[in-house]
Amino acid sequence: MSKQILCLPGDGIGPEIVVEALKVLDVVKSQFDLDIEVSEGLVGGASLDAHGVPLTDEVLAVAKKSDGILFGAVGGPKWDDQPMMNRPERGLLKLRSEMGLFANLRPAMLFPQLAEASSLKHELVAGLDILIVRELTGGIYFGEPRGVRTLENGEREGYNSYVYRESEIKRIAKVAFEAAQKRGGRLTSVDKSNVLEVTALWRELVTEMGAADYSDVELSHMYVDNAAMQLVRAPKQFDVMVTGNMFGDILSDCAAMLTGSIGMLPSASLNEANQGMYEPVHGSAPDIAGQGKANPLAQILSLAMLLRYSLGEIEAADAIEKAVSDVLDQGLRTGDIASEGCTQVGTTEMGDAVVKCLQVL
Amino acid sequence: MSKQILCLPGDGIGPEIVVEALKVLDVVKSQFDLDIEVSEGLVGGASLDAHGVPLTDEVLAVAKKSDGILFGAVGGPKWDDQPMMNRPERGLLKLRSEMGLFANLRPAMLFPQLAEASSLKHELVAGLDILIVRELTGGIYFGEPRGVRTLENGEREGYNSYVYRESEIKRIAKVAFEAAQKRGGRLTSVDKSNVLEVTALWRELVTEMGAADYSDVELSHMYVDNAAMQLVRAPKQFDVMVTGNMFGDILSDCAAMLTGSIGMLPSASLNEANQGMYEPVHGSAPDIAGQGKANPLAQILSLAMLLRYSLGEIEAADAIEKAVSDVLDQGLRTGDIASEGCTQVGTTEMGDAVVKCLQVL
Ligand SMILES: CC(C)[C@H](C(=O)O)[C@@H](O)C(=O)O
Ligand SMILES: CC(C)[C@H](C(=O)O)[C@@H](O)C(=O)O
Repeated sequence: MSKQILCLPGDGIGPEIVVEALKVLDVVKSQFDLDIEVSEGLVGGASLDAHGVPLTDEVLAVAKKSDGILFGAVGGPKWDDQPMMNRPERGLLKLRSEMGLFANLRPAMLFPQLAEASSLKHELVAGLDILIVRELTGGIYFGEPRGVRTLENGEREGYNSYVYRESEIKRIAKVAFEAAQKRGGRLTSVDKSNVLEVTALWRELVTEMGAADYSDVELSHMYVDNAAMQLVRAPKQFDVMVTGNMFGDILSDCAAMLTGSIGMLPSASLNEANQGMYEPVHGSAPDIAGQGKANPLAQILSLAMLLRYSLGEIEAADAIEKAVSDVLDQGLRTGDIASEGCTQVGTTEMGDAVVKCLQVL
Repeated sequence: MSKQILCLPGDGIGPEIVVEALKVLDVVKSQFDLDIEVSEGLVGGASLDAHGVPLTDEVLAVAKKSDGILFGAVGGPKWDDQPMMNRPERGLLKLRSEMGLFANLRPAMLFPQLAEASSLKHELVAGLDILIVRELTGGIYFGEPRGVRTLENGEREGYNSYVYRESEIKRIAKVAFEAAQKRGGRLTSVDKSNVLEVTALWRELVTEMGAADYSDVELSHMYVDNAAMQLVRAPKQFDVMVTGNMFGDILSDCAAMLTGSIGMLPSASLNEANQGMYEPVHGSAPDIAGQGKANPLAQILSLAMLLRYSLGEIEAADAIEKAVSDVLDQGLRTGDIASEGCTQVGTTEMGDAVVKCLQVL
C-alpha cells in the first residue's frame, strides 16, 4: 500500500519553499522507487481566507490518516487582528494538539560550509550540534483557564495557565533521555524551578527518571535564564536539552539563530504512534514572501527527516541530505546565508540545484 | 537628615563584592561630603540559616524606610532542597513584591575596553547599548493559583498562573516609553500575543498608549521567540525593550551575556515612590564564591546607580563610573573578563584599584 504524505504549505514563504521540497520528492520517488502519494491541504491564514477557520475538520482527518505531514509555515500581518482562536497559528497548534504531537525535536547544528554566517565567533560554534527536545502539546500553550476577564474595579485582566502533569513530563523526558543515549550521552533539563512550582515538579521527575532508568546519561539542570546565557556564551557545552513548550519555543529559536543557519534547520514533531509532522524551524517570513528569495533548504531537509523517521526511507533521506551539502559546496547561497565569494541564488534556483545534484548521484 | 542605605549582601559571591562597593562608598562619602548611613541585613540563604526564613520582617521594615538598597545576590545549591516558599530567592521576590519594585531596568551595554570579551563578532556588538525594562512584581512569578495538586487518577499536576491586569501593564509601559524618550526614541514591546491571551492584552494596551501619548516614540512589537533570535543576530537594532517578568528574566540575561560584560552590569528596581533596589545582573555564582575571584564592578556600578537615581548624588555617581572605566583602561581584569595582554586580578585588588582611581581624581 502506498504511503501517504500530506503537504500543508500554509502562509508567507511556506508555499514557495514547499514547492521546492515537492520537486525533490518527485526525484527521489523515481530514483528509489518509492510508493508515496502526496495530497495537499490548507492551513493557517490560507485556510482562514478560504474556509473561515485556520484548520478544517477535513484537513485534520486527512492529517490523522497520513504517514507523514510536510508543513510549511503559518501566520502574517494580514491576520493579526483575528481573535485568538481564529489566528493562523491556531491551525498549527490544533494539529499538534489533536494529533498528540508532543515531542518536538529541534536540532541546532552548524553546517560547516556556513560557519561564517553565525554571529558568534567561529571557534565557539564550529562543530556545533545541539538537539533541543521541546514539549509541544502542554504547558502554557494549552493550559486552562485562559482568557481576559473584567475585574470588579472595571479593569481587564489577562490570564493563562502553565500546567504540566506527571505523565506529560515523563513521556517527553523519556524521549530526551533516549535521544541523549543515541547521541553524546548528556542531557540538560531546563526549568525555572526556583520560582515556578510546575517546573519544580518537572525537575523532581526528571531527576528521579535519570537516577532510576538512565544512569548512563549525564543529567544536569539549568534555570532558563542561565540556559539563555550559556547558549550565547558557550553553546558547545550542550548535547541534548529538554524543556517545556514556552521555554522550548524561546531557546530553540535562540539556539537555531546561533548557528547562523536558521534557514537550513528542519524539525520534527512526533506522537506516541510515531506519526510525524516536519517543518522548518524558521517561520513564514511575510516580509520576503512572494519574492522568490526564501531559502528552501530547511523545507527540503524537513522532507528528508520525514522520509527517514516516519517512512523509514533511509537511503532517500541520505541522498537528499548529501545533495543539500553538495549545493553548499558548490557555493550556492540564498540571501539569508549569503557570503562573499559565493553565488547568490533564489528559491527556485536553489531547489533546482538540489534536484540536479540528486540526479547525478 | 542623613540618607539611609540598606546593604543586603546575600549569598555566594554577594558578600565579597558588596564589601568592595562599601569601600568605594566610604571614599565618595568623604570626597563629596555625603551624609549617608549604611546598615546591613541578611537575605536569602544567609537569612534562612540564621532565622529560618529568607527575609525577616525586621529587615523588610528597614528596607521600606531606606532611601536605597544595595543588593548582592541570593541562592546556591546548599538550599536547593528547601520548599518553594523558603528558598533564598523568595527573600528577593518578597522584597520586590512588598516594596512594589515593579520597574526593573537592566542595561545591556558593551564596555569599549571589553569588546573582545563578547562571544559575538566585534562589529555586531561594538557600541551596543540596550535598556531592558522588565516588569518585576507581576506575571507568572506572582500569579495565583499556583502549586502542585493530585488529580483523580492519582498523578500530580503542577500549575502556575500568568496574570497581568491593565494597570500593571500601563505603569510599566509608561516607564519604558519615558525611557525611550530620554534615549534613542525607539521601543520594542515583547510578547507572545499570537498564543497567550495575557500578552495579547499587553500588546493591545501598549499599542493604544503609543498612539495616544507617545507618538514621538517609534514603537514596535516582537514575539518573544523572535526577540531571542534578533538579540543574537543583530542586537544593535534595539534601543529600549519592554516585557513581562518571565520573558524579561530570560531576555535580559541573554542580552547581558551578549555584551561579554555580564560581570560589569548593574540593574535598578524602582517603585512608584522612586525608592530603589540596586543589584548586579549576574547571580550568586556559588561555584566561585569564597575564592576571591569574583568581579566586583557590577556591584560597584550598582552603587553608582543608587547614588544617581535614589540619592540624586550625580557627581559621586559620575566619579565612580569614571573610576571603573579607568581601571579597565589600566588593563586590570578579573577572571570573567580576562584577556590577553591584560593583568588578571582578584576581587579585592579590583576594588582597591577603583578606590585608588577615585582618590587621584
Ligand atoms: C507559530 C507559533 C505558534 C509557533 C510556536 O510558538 O510554537 C512557532 O513559533 C514555533 O516555534 O513553532
Ligand atoms: C534569583 C531569581 C529569582 C531572579 C529572577 O528570576 O527574577 C534572578 O534570576 C533575576 O533575574 O533577578
